[in-house]
Amino acid sequence: MEQEIMNAVKAVLEHLQTDGARPAGGSDRMTLALAEALIARVKEKAAQMGVRAVVAVSDAAARPVAVHCMDDAYIASFDIALNKTYTSASLKMSTEKLGELSQPGQPLYGIQFTNGGRIVIFGGGEVLELKGKIVGALGVSGGTAQEDTALAAYGKTIFEEVAACL
Amino acid sequence: MEQEIMNAVKAVLEHLQTDGARPAGGSDRMTLALAEALIARVKEKAAQMGVRAVVAVSDAAARPVAVHCMDDAYIASFDIALNKTYTSASLKMSTEKLGELSQPGQPLYGIQFTNGGRIVIFGGGEVLELKGKIVGALGVSGGTAQEDTALAAYGKTIFEEVAACL
Amino acid sequence: MEQEIMNAVKAVLEHLQTDGARPAGGSDRMTLALAEALIARVKEKAAQMGVRAVVAVSDAAARPVAVHCMDDAYIASFDIALNKTYTSASLKMSTEKLGELSQPGQPLYGIQFTNGGRIVIFGGGEVLELKGKIVGALGVSGGTAQEDTALAAYGKTIFEEVAACL
Amino acid sequence: MEQEIMNAVKAVLEHLQTDGARPAGGSDRMTLALAEALIARVKEKAAQMGVRAVVAVSDAAARPVAVHCMDDAYIASFDIALNKTYTSASLKMSTEKLGELSQPGQPLYGIQFTNGGRIVIFGGGEVLELKGKIVGALGVSGGTAQEDTALAAYGKTIFEEVAACL
Repeated sequence: MEQEIMNAVKAVLEHLQTDGARPAGGSDRMTLALAEALIARVKEKAAQMGVRAVVAVSDAAARPVAVHCMDDAYIASFDIALNKTYTSASLKMSTEKLGELSQPGQPLYGIQFTNGGRIVIFGGGEVLELKGKIVGALGVSGGTAQEDTALAAYGKTIFEEVAACL
Repeated sequence: MEQEIMNAVKAVLEHLQTDGARPAGGSDRMTLALAEALIARVKEKAAQMGVRAVVAVSDAAARPVAVHCMDDAYIASFDIALNKTYTSASLKMSTEKLGELSQPGQPLYGIQFTNGGRIVIFGGGEVLELKGKIVGALGVSGGTAQEDTALAAYGKTIFEEVAACL
Repeated sequence: MEQEIMNAVKAVLEHLQTDGARPAGGSDRMTLALAEALIARVKEKAAQMGVRAVVAVSDAAARPVAVHCMDDAYIASFDIALNKTYTSASLKMSTEKLGELSQPGQPLYGIQFTNGGRIVIFGGGEVLELKGKIVGALGVSGGTAQEDTALAAYGKTIFEEVAACL
Repeated sequence: MEQEIMNAVKAVLEHLQTDGARPAGGSDRMTLALAEALIARVKEKAAQMGVRAVVAVSDAAARPVAVHCMDDAYIASFDIALNKTYTSASLKMSTEKLGELSQPGQPLYGIQFTNGGRIVIFGGGEVLELKGKIVGALGVSGGTAQEDTALAAYGKTIFEEVAACL
């Protein structure tokens, strides 16, 4: 009995230790492997929709992890997709939501001018969460605002599932 | 006679030393000690309100004196809080007031584009006054526009009292 | 006669379609698929060397195509790797070579100040060629200058082979 | 016996759980309280040395946590101290060490031009470590290069002790 408990304790401790050390399916951190897997799915969806997108993923500190530019995507979309990840990670909300709050007359009108040109106020940026905790952000640019918004929302929705499959 | 001169010189030297050295209750300049004391009070209030704020104080020349980022505050709030101090100190009004004046169609519309992205036009920035003279500015970012506005107004209100207690 | 014209038209159309649509082994353009394949190989090599690299690929116009940041790579390496692709693609030489030419007293001293902070003058940037034509550039940052140089040289060397396997 | 083991297990698990939740002395993350405590000590030392310093602390992602400008510090020191934290956190080395590597003719000559003017190549920036893991960086500016270097080294040395006392 004693031995069994000791073994169980050991197993739990080992699990807890390795949990911090490697980005397993149950990890709570953004990793390159996770970013790549998410980007692959979003690109697939974009291709189905006929959108040539730039897809970017940042970590929770708004630092870039991976960026892919689909062939013939807009040149400007590289900065926009990256800035969407910056905006969502650093303000903890979607760029679409921020877009509503930053219209003339709305409470955050003007926030688009405060951070060195890095705040994006139209759709396509979403926070990425694992177990209710923000671990990064997704930025999509290349289609219409509506298409970018839909693609980023899609990425946000499938993110936990993508993480579980790694 | 000699003694009197010596005393006068000593008085002048003491005055010069204390003037530069410490922010006494009667000081009319922003100091780090004063900024720290104000920030401590604003952080305490923010914690009570459940806001994770960045709190910044500048001097009358709109130069930063101290900035504190409460744990898990928005990343974007560092620039925004600093820019709120810049805006209030350099335009001698609250960012909330400026927000009204800079809406499309209003007299200062466009001022948000004139200073390299440093002008903030929503609440959370206030000038700080001692004896009716502006000695600096306070910038708060991290809550809703309403919360930031309330926190900055609170800081402005208690500022003279905080200065008197140093 | 009619048939011949139809065939010629069909051939032209097919040529146009495949040319734009897919990065075949015989392609002479940078594509995302090609960039991803190259980055995968360079990351594999970096992992073997114990380097946590940022690996970036641009097209011939010095526009980014893909960037991957290996876990725990230097934060500064994102900009550096991207700027290495910019430097190599826009000056058509390796950043190592440019490093020699831009030392104080050398013919290109000063070029590091001319392009808004985007010119990198130490190793890790290489042009990428297919059939003797520059189609893009590779930027690697994260190890020592020597390691980055070796990784970029490796990527340049295998590039044609990687392209042939797609 | 069984009960004792169960209690020990429960205690360990609780410890592990709270460890993640609050910045106790054994925490492995930068917090505002920790940054403030370190800055207080570095300012004290600077005052003893007669240096009017700006002292800044960032987290591991090179995001600012707190900045204090001692009275009458150089205006330019605000940016320099912050950029020293950026440099050390994002390149995982002291700015003094980077200064050696970035001299003309040295392997990293030119890195001072690659990151939008945020790389500092003279002393005063150090990484901050807890249990061998980088959790942030310290930037000091305001004295001579030698004084800034000494102050940053001092802060790095006492950091673990400061963290243990919180």
